[in-house]
Amino acid sequence: MKVYNFSAGPSTLNDAVKLQAQKDFVDYEGCGMSVTEMSHRSKVFDKIHNEAIALLRELMHIGDEYEVLFVQGGASTQFDAIPLNLMTTGKADYIVTGNFANKAAQAGARYGTANVVASSKADKYTYIPDMTKVVTNDDADYVHMTYNNTIFGTKFTTLPKHKAPLIADLSSNILSEEIDVNQFDMIYAGAQKNIGPAGLTIIIIKKELIGKALEICPIMLNYKTQADANSLYNTPPCFAIYMAMLTFRWLKDMGGVKAIQKINEDKAKMLYDYIDNSGFYKNNVAVNDRSLMNVPFVTASAELDAKFVKEAELAGLVSLKGHKLVGGMRASIYNAMPVEGVQALISFMKKFAEENK
Amino acid sequence: MKVYNFSAGPSTLNDAVKLQAQKDFVDYEGCGMSVTEMSHRSKVFDKIHNEAIALLRELMHIGDEYEVLFVQGGASTQFDAIPLNLMTTGKADYIVTGNFANKAAQAGARYGTANVVASSKADKYTYIPDMTKVVTNDDADYVHMTYNNTIFGTKFTTLPKHKAPLIADLSSNILSEEIDVNQFDMIYAGAQKNIGPAGLTIIIIKKELIGKALEICPIMLNYKTQADANSLYNTPPCFAIYMAMLTFRWLKDMGGVKAIQKINEDKAKMLYDYIDNSGFYKNNVAVNDRSLMNVPFVTASAELDAKFVKEAELAGLVSLKGHKLVGGMRASIYNAMPVEGVQALISFMKKFAEENK
Repeated sequence: MKVYNFSAGPSTLNDAVKLQAQKDFVDYEGCGMSVTEMSHRSKVFDKIHNEAIALLRELMHIGDEYEVLFVQGGASTQFDAIPLNLMTTGKADYIVTGNFANKAAQAGARYGTANVVASSKADKYTYIPDMTKVVTNDDADYVHMTYNNTIFGTKFTTLPKHKAPLIADLSSNILSEEIDVNQFDMIYAGAQKNIGPAGLTIIIIKKELIGKALEICPIMLNYKTQADANSLYNTPPCFAIYMAMLTFRWLKDMGGVKAIQKINEDKAKMLYDYIDNSGFYKNNVAVNDRSLMNVPFVTASAELDAKFVKEAELAGLVSLKGHKLVGGMRASIYNAMPVEGVQALISFMKKFAEENK
Repeated sequence: MKVYNFSAGPSTLNDAVKLQAQKDFVDYEGCGMSVTEMSHRSKVFDKIHNEAIALLRELMHIGDEYEVLFVQGGASTQFDAIPLNLMTTGKADYIVTGNFANKAAQAGARYGTANVVASSKADKYTYIPDMTKVVTNDDADYVHMTYNNTIFGTKFTTLPKHKAPLIADLSSNILSEEIDVNQFDMIYAGAQKNIGPAGLTIIIIKKELIGKALEICPIMLNYKTQADANSLYNTPPCFAIYMAMLTFRWLKDMGGVKAIQKINEDKAKMLYDYIDNSGFYKNNVAVNDRSLMNVPFVTASAELDAKFVKEAELAGLVSLKGHKLVGGMRASIYNAMPVEGVQALISFMKKFAEENK
C-alpha cells in the first residue's frame, strides 16, 4: 500500500534513498558485505564515513573552524552533554520555546544556573518571543535555542543578540532551509527527521569550544573524545551514517539546500493557505513564527480530530496524530515528503471537511 | 563476491536475517513504510520492539526481576554509566582482563575508588586470573568483569566469589553459549557482534538496582529514565532493534542458545586444533581461557602475518587483521559465522603454511 508518512520522527525518507539502501543491503558495492556488518575500521566504511562528513560540510557550507561529529544518543543526550562540555563557569542562557527547549534548560540547571532569558511557555509555546527584545547575558557560558519546535510547529525567524556562544538544536529543520552556520558556535540535530534512521546525532561545533569539559563529563559524551577520534572512539552507528550519506547525495543532486528550501516553502504555503482558508481547520501558531517542517492543526472538536486521524490513516496518510501536549493533528513535511504527499493530504482534508461540516 | 567476514565488530550477520531485512526494507509487512522511517510510537514499531525484548528474555531465560533495556552509545558509554548509576558508596571492584575491562576500571576511578582485585595486564592479558583465588570486597558497590575479551581472545570459565552485585560486559559473547543470567545483577552488551548492526546496546539489570543513580548522572544515562519509559524516553535506534529481533528469531528457530553453543564449540575446536597442530601458527592464550568467539593467532613473523592478512583478503576471508594491541591475526567466529567459513579459513591457512614454510 502506498502511504504518505507524516511522522514527526523517525520520518519519511526519500524513495530513491530507500531503494538504493535496499539494493545494496546484502552486498555493498560488491564487497560481499552489508553495511550493517562491516568493520567500522575497514576501508570501505571509512569511505562512507568520510563522504558523509564531506557532503554535510558541503551542503551546509561548514568551515574548517568547525568540527563535525557523528554521535549516538539523540538530542536528548545532548541536553546534558552541552552543559557537561561547556558550562565552565556554571551559568548559561536558555530560550524556552517548546518541550525540548524546556528539557534542555532543565538539564542545564542540573549543572549550574540555567537562566531562562525568554519563554513562551505561559502561552503554550504558540509563538517565538521577540528576539529583538531579548537580553542575553554576556558572561553566560552559552545561549541555547531550539530553532524549530517539532511539537508546537514554530521556528525562529530572528536570532537573539548574544556575546556568549550560541548553540542551536536543529533536529527538526537541519538541511531544510539555508542557515548560515557561522551564526552559531554549535549546532546539533538528531538524524531521524531530515537525514536518516534514528540512532545518529550530528554535532557541528567550533573547534575552540572543544576540550573544556567538566571533570564529571562521561568520556563518551566529551566532544574531545569524539573529535580526537574522528567520531570513531568506539563503534559508530554505521548503517545510520551510510543512510545519511545517501540522503546527502540525494540533496546535493537535487540542487542542495537552496533548492529543497524552495520546495519546502511551497509545500508549507500550500498547506497553511488551505488551513487558513478552510473555515474548518485551524493552526494555532503565530503566523510569523510558523514552522516549515511541522504543521499542527485542529478541527472544532477533539472527537472530530480523532475521527480525522483514523480516517486519514485508512486513506494512507499516516502518523498525523498531534503530540499529546498539543492534541489535534500534526503534519510533518520534512525534506523527503514529496509535494504529492502534501497535495494528497489537502485533498483528504477537503473531503473530510465536506463530510463533517 | 562471496566473502567470509571475520571482523570483531561490527560482525557478520546471518544470511537469512540480511535477506529478510532487505526484502522488508522499503515496505515492512505491507505497512508502506521502511523500519528506518516509521514512528517509534507507532503500533507496528511497538510490536517489533516488544517482540525483540520478549525473544531476548526467552532465549536467555531472563526472569521478571530483571529489566531489559535497549539503549545507545555502545559498551564504552556504559563504562561511565555503570558507576554513575551504581557507585553509590564510592567504591567498586574491577577484574581487569583486557583493554575494555581496563577502560571500564579507568572510568570507574573517575567517580570513586576502582579497586582492581585481579588483573592479567602485566602478562598482556593472555589469561584470566584464577577466580577461585580472587577476593572481592563485600562492601563494594559492584564487581565488574568482562566475560569475553574480544581483543585478546580469552573468556572466563569460573566467576569470582562475590557478595556485591556482579556486573558483566558480555559484548562479545552474549547469546553464544548458555549463561545463567541469575548469576549476574547486571549484564550489558553492544549489539554489533552477536546480535545486529552497531548502534544498539543491551542492558539486563535487576530491577532493585534501578533508581540509585548519582545526582551527576546524565538523564539519558540513568537506567531509571530508560526503565520507566520501556527504553522509549526518546527515539530509540529502531532499525538496529528490528534487526536484533530478526536475529533473535533466527536463533530461536535454530534451537536457541544451547544449539548455537554446540556449533560454536565445534567451530572453535576445529580452529584451535588446527592451529595447535599446524607447527606454523600459534595462539598465545592460556588454553583453558580460550574464547569461543575470538581466536587470535600469529605466524613466526610480523611480515608473514601482514602477508597472510593481505592474501586472505584476496581469497575472500576479510577483516582477519589482529587488533593493534596484539598484532597478528584474529578470527572472530560469532554465532553468524557458518561452519563453512571456519573450514574455508582453515583451508586457506593450510595452503598459506605450505607456501610459506
